[in-house]
Amino acid sequence: MNDTGEPLYLEDLHVGRRFTSGHYDIDEAQIKAFAGEFDPQPFHLNETAAEHSLFDGIVASGWHTAAATMRLVVKSDLRLANGVIGLGCEISWPKPVRPGDTLRVESEILEIVPSRSKTDRGIVIVRTVTLNQNSDPVQVLTAKLLVFKRGHDPTAPL
Amino acid sequence: MNDTGEPLYLEDLHVGRRFTSGHYDIDEAQIKAFAGEFDPQPFHLNETAAEHSLFDGIVASGWHTAAATMRLVVKSDLRLANGVIGLGCEISWPKPVRPGDTLRVESEILEIVPSRSKTDRGIVIVRTVTLNQNSDPVQVLTAKLLVFKRGHDPTAPL
Repeated sequence: MNDTGEPLYLEDLHVGRRFTSGHYDIDEAQIKAFAGEFDPQPFHLNETAAEHSLFDGIVASGWHTAAATMRLVVKSDLRLANGVIGLGCEISWPKPVRPGDTLRVESEILEIVPSRSKTDRGIVIVRTVTLNQNSDPVQVLTAKLLVFKRGHDPTAPL
Repeated sequence: MNDTGEPLYLEDLHVGRRFTSGHYDIDEAQIKAFAGEFDPQPFHLNETAAEHSLFDGIVASGWHTAAATMRLVVKSDLRLANGVIGLGCEISWPKPVRPGDTLRVESEILEIVPSRSKTDRGIVIVRTVTLNQNSDPVQVLTAKLLVFKRGHDPTAPL
């Protein structure tokens, strides 16, 4: 949001602007529920198997970390008027998320590319680092977001 | 898996090898449940708001597509002996997933990079395209997977 708490348009953004989030607690039940539905592998679901894996204990699916990151971003002060619409991204997971971790995100605008063909919008490159309670990065996401200017037609096609 | 149905090690893989999956049906209730937990934005949660957005109707969170893709990959014939362990990836979402879509994935090995420092493992670059029932790509994922050779120590650290 901007200084007056209003949602943000392309004109409000600049390279280097930073955004922060609240916290997200992740426990073993959540890790197992997510993995059971989307990433049913032993090191996410079974303590004994996880202890005998290279993770040395239960870890969250990287997609769970990504999903939790999205929740933190959507509820952060990066409040875009048309929502957080990602066209694509790069992700790395430098360290696993474990039961009991508390996550937060720090985002920074790296680049702003106005559209050449559509004057009402641009692509904003945002790096979002997800940190645990020790401030260790557990995910580094560089996303291409579609951001609109004021007065655009919100139903215009992509 | 290999021809005899056994899980795969690094030695079993080669560039150009392809893998396919079963199907994953995605309905409006699933889209809203996922988005409510991880991506609470109007175009994922509310029909009227979604019709007035650039998506022209409810669409799945890109992270829901990514998570469904992971489920398809884990249950596909890309059955790695140590599991599907991603170190990082690039993703694009060329088209949204909508209620009633049926997804499947097609994966192909693009590159195999043996580790220089650790002789028991390598990085395998896999492109996984997620397709809807019309064979339109809805996600293109290029992932770096950690894959072990036969006889490695499964509890050796990353």
